[in-house]
Amino acid sequence: MADIFHLDNDVFRSYLACGTVIIVKMMALSLFTTYRRFKYKAFSNPEDTKRPVTKHEDVERVRRLHRNDLENIPVFLALGCMYIATEPVPSTAIWHFRVFAISRILHSISYLAGIQPWRVLVYSVGFLVNASMAYHILCAAL
Amino acid sequence: MADIFHLDNDVFRSYLACGTVIIVKMMALSLFTTYRRFKYKAFSNPEDTKRPVTKHEDVERVRRLHRNDLENIPVFLALGCMYIATEPVPSTAIWHFRVFAISRILHSISYLAGIQPWRVLVYSVGFLVNASMAYHILCAAL
Amino acid sequence: MADIFHLDNDVFRSYLACGTVIIVKMMALSLFTTYRRFKYKAFSNPEDTKRPVTKHEDVERVRRLHRNDLENIPVFLALGCMYIATEPVPSTAIWHFRVFAISRILHSISYLAGIQPWRVLVYSVGFLVNASMAYHILCAAL
Repeated sequence: MADIFHLDNDVFRSYLACGTVIIVKMMALSLFTTYRRFKYKAFSNPEDTKRPVTKHEDVERVRRLHRNDLENIPVFLALGCMYIATEPVPSTAIWHFRVFAISRILHSISYLAGIQPWRVLVYSVGFLVNASMAYHILCAAL
Repeated sequence: MADIFHLDNDVFRSYLACGTVIIVKMMALSLFTTYRRFKYKAFSNPEDTKRPVTKHEDVERVRRLHRNDLENIPVFLALGCMYIATEPVPSTAIWHFRVFAISRILHSISYLAGIQPWRVLVYSVGFLVNASMAYHILCAAL
Repeated sequence: MADIFHLDNDVFRSYLACGTVIIVKMMALSLFTTYRRFKYKAFSNPEDTKRPVTKHEDVERVRRLHRNDLENIPVFLALGCMYIATEPVPSTAIWHFRVFAISRILHSISYLAGIQPWRVLVYSVGFLVNASMAYHILCAAL
């Protein structure tokens, strides 16, 4: 039997690529928050600035997006890994990963640009990918 | 040697079931937040509403619960996976997973209903399950 | 072929140890938040106190640090696991894990003490460890 969690497994390699791409996207939000904090001089810790600490809507928007990522991307990473262990049909699994990664990239763009209803639509696609993997795992494990 | 991270392993299958159940519970909070935002017309992004953005305590309560989940459930998912790798006694491990899943479901109910001291009690049970797994992993790895 | 995700693999055992140490550090923040909430009588849920709910800067500082952990530690845990699957040079991988764990412990200390520029410096070290692992995974998977 071939090892499931190995680079020889196309499904696992796709998970590594898609998972890492969205992690890098999420890490970029940390840098973007810092950039906007300096741009608008809006810091949350008194030791970071000589001015009073303050909030700026353009910083808070990145923070809200980042929190949305924290609510969805670790869930994808955990479900994706468990889903692979159920040995799904390779092409189905690979499309789950690709669609999730693309939906989260488009979600970030539409959140930062404030474009509705696109933000809700691409969010829903990512949410449904997670729901579909959860359903597959429960069917296999119970 | 049988593969540890495989459906044939009862401990791993229990982890898949319990882990996915609490992930689904956490995903439901996203939908519940959206439901309450519409119910109370309390949105955080200006593009979501024609009214001024506002906060509502019943929305913020779900958000605080969701953040509490984010602080505890990814920790469980990571520790649970590492714990399985230490090849624990199966029945002990399976009870760790079940107790954690039940404690987090009861925690969500008692948080939303605002019932103390039950919220603290069931929170502590989940916290202690994570602490117990962390102790086992450190004993095995060091 | 030896199993990658097994205690016999030095790289995986190092991941278990370093990953669990930083999870325990993050779990300690939950207890520290509770301690400071009682100390300053600053609770966020009305059922927790007879006084009005209120915020205290010393509680909010722990909460900001905890959120920073949530943005970085699950990312490390996911990337670390994927990185091991690419079978990196053992000594390089083990140093990635150790440097990350030390950087996050120093980050917590400097955040709570409000010491700049140390907080930014140790934060950057942890961020670069994650970036380096992400780069390695993408090179191996694509």
